[in-house]
Amino acid sequence: MPKKIAVLAGDGIGPEIVAEAIKVLSFLNTNMNLGLVFENALIGGAAYDAFGTPLPQTTLNLCKNADAVLLGAVGGPKWEPLAHAVRPERGLLGIRSELNLFSNLRPAILYPQLVDASTLKPEVVSGLDIMIVRELTGGIYFGQPRGVHVAENGEKVGINTKIYSESEIRRIAHSAFKIAQKRHKKLCSVDKANVLEVTELWRSVMTEVGKEYPDVQLSHMYVDNAAMQLVRAPKQFDVIVTSNMFGDILSDIAAMLTGSIGMLPSASLDANAKGMYEPIHGSAPDIAGQGIANPLATILSVAMMLRYTFNQPEAAERIERAVNTALDSKVRTADIYSEGMIKVSTSGMGDAVLNAL
Amino acid sequence: MPKKIAVLAGDGIGPEIVAEAIKVLSFLNTNMNLGLVFENALIGGAAYDAFGTPLPQTTLNLCKNADAVLLGAVGGPKWEPLAHAVRPERGLLGIRSELNLFSNLRPAILYPQLVDASTLKPEVVSGLDIMIVRELTGGIYFGQPRGVHVAENGEKVGINTKIYSESEIRRIAHSAFKIAQKRHKKLCSVDKANVLEVTELWRSVMTEVGKEYPDVQLSHMYVDNAAMQLVRAPKQFDVIVTSNMFGDILSDIAAMLTGSIGMLPSASLDANAKGMYEPIHGSAPDIAGQGIANPLATILSVAMMLRYTFNQPEAAERIERAVNTALDSKVRTADIYSEGMIKVSTSGMGDAVLNAL
Ligand SMILES: CC(C)[C@H](C(=O)O)[C@@H](O)C(=O)O
Ligand SMILES: CC(C)[C@H](C(=O)O)[C@@H](O)C(=O)O
Repeated sequence: MPKKIAVLAGDGIGPEIVAEAIKVLSFLNTNMNLGLVFENALIGGAAYDAFGTPLPQTTLNLCKNADAVLLGAVGGPKWEPLAHAVRPERGLLGIRSELNLFSNLRPAILYPQLVDASTLKPEVVSGLDIMIVRELTGGIYFGQPRGVHVAENGEKVGINTKIYSESEIRRIAHSAFKIAQKRHKKLCSVDKANVLEVTELWRSVMTEVGKEYPDVQLSHMYVDNAAMQLVRAPKQFDVIVTSNMFGDILSDIAAMLTGSIGMLPSASLDANAKGMYEPIHGSAPDIAGQGIANPLATILSVAMMLRYTFNQPEAAERIERAVNTALDSKVRTADIYSEGMIKVSTSGMGDAVLNAL
Repeated sequence: MPKKIAVLAGDGIGPEIVAEAIKVLSFLNTNMNLGLVFENALIGGAAYDAFGTPLPQTTLNLCKNADAVLLGAVGGPKWEPLAHAVRPERGLLGIRSELNLFSNLRPAILYPQLVDASTLKPEVVSGLDIMIVRELTGGIYFGQPRGVHVAENGEKVGINTKIYSESEIRRIAHSAFKIAQKRHKKLCSVDKANVLEVTELWRSVMTEVGKEYPDVQLSHMYVDNAAMQLVRAPKQFDVIVTSNMFGDILSDIAAMLTGSIGMLPSASLDANAKGMYEPIHGSAPDIAGQGIANPLATILSVAMMLRYTFNQPEAAERIERAVNTALDSKVRTADIYSEGMIKVSTSGMGDAVLNAL
């Protein structure tokens, strides 16, 4: 049976970077007989412009029937004046929620070839290899009540609710502990248990689940300290597990440590390893259409797809090795360019990876 | 009339660092005839141990009747098993709230003498001078409903509520715009308006208030991007204004850019510039009692107190210059020590500042 991939290029640089990832994946598909079929659909601002909604039912159905989703990026200033419910981001959040993709894996790896691209000193970041596990379908992103209402005194009041149940925390805890077992067996759970009761529950469930994984060393850290420690001594971390909002912030910090968020892939998985794969960077409307975006985060997202959803570790490693080879050959998109390197376009970088496969 | 300062040394390294700040302040008090009187009280874990509550009524009354509060730090592992309502942090949060200290100023300045202490490359951080204005009495720190309850299906559910009214946003906006006017006239408001309705209200009120400050250039940034930009190119920022929780995280990142959070003071002001002053670092229980903590953040907090509450800019500058002179003389506490410097104790550093006054 063919394995279906829903391809949602989205907005901004989305279409450009997704094209390169598909180029790479198509090659492997033929070369290794992977049996993958692709189907495109609109999401985000592009879908809003065409259908008046950022997540058309057809797109959602396609994703539900697919084995994996490849997403570019959504959003841009063009759609910022829109009401919340039809913003491009709602499309992305809608798929995460509808497909129950609660476990978001965000590796932050510093490629040795890019150590100079980091704003941190080489000794602080060289060899960096962190995995952030972010809860993706709960917390303040989805909690009710939410919205803006007019209070009795006539002024507007805005509300969002951070809410987690034990079972929501438990399932992301298991995801994180299992990943830690396959890595260096160190898991740091990040919360704000000294202030927020919801994260006190988070901490106690993490501790409880930890008893089932005695081989993993569990620690707890407050989110402000964790953000600071990522800048002070990031190599102290192996796997970090945290809530939706904190994970959003911490994963962007971790990404930036590696020199460019143009390099970092992500996987968002449900309980059966069905998943959505996307670069962690955004739609970068300022550089869209210029052919200068870095496609490596999306190409590496395809590698994660092959590993996690399609159980093809060999194909995944081929891509990862090819990215390494491309970087060795000194080709660089603008975001990771430094003196002495060869500046290439989006498709130039895609070609470099393809040639190295 | 004498000006009253409530001195709350708190837990961990609190008493050690506060002692040095008082040493410096007492000298100036006599030398410049400032007319300050000091009164000590317990807070946090120390207060819990003595009275069973982290914020005894006597302490709160003292603070309410004082013109300014000098706080060391609260908390430590000893009190972590306690119920939320009596944790040391509740003492701190209680004063912030009871005294209506809604405007929290957290400057992040890199001292040129410490550029090597930063984990970021010198060209990225040298000359760094950011002011973070954090809303301190609202948002998810104080929102109701909050707590952990048992749902119908028998599982526990944790809830905290992020809530802001227009007037709460408006008053912190005015604080921030006024500060920006006295600096480089650039204000970046940080929110997550693409996901959270409450921060959409935040953004629109910021924009509205901004019309009253046409000389200040207002921009908006999502919190994940802001965290990333602080690591990528921190010098792009002048003043940042944000909510309680985001400010907690961003100010710790900004602090870390400067090489050590042992250097950074803070002011928490009400509408009449009555304020609480404290280092932004915590109680560091791991090094408490060893006489090695850095007292400069607390000493610099006293400078902020003289500037903001007592309107003594000259006295404030004398302290700030003395800190600079002390650093020029190469004395360093352990947290900012590097080769070729002279390692000193907490009181050694206090003496160095005193001698430089
Ligand atoms: C676009 C936005 C809704 C999204 C998020 O906040 O989750 C993005 O920042 C991310 O991290 O994937
Ligand atoms: C101790 C804690 C309650 C406090 C906070 O979260 O506000 C601290 O982290 C701070 O930033 O002052």
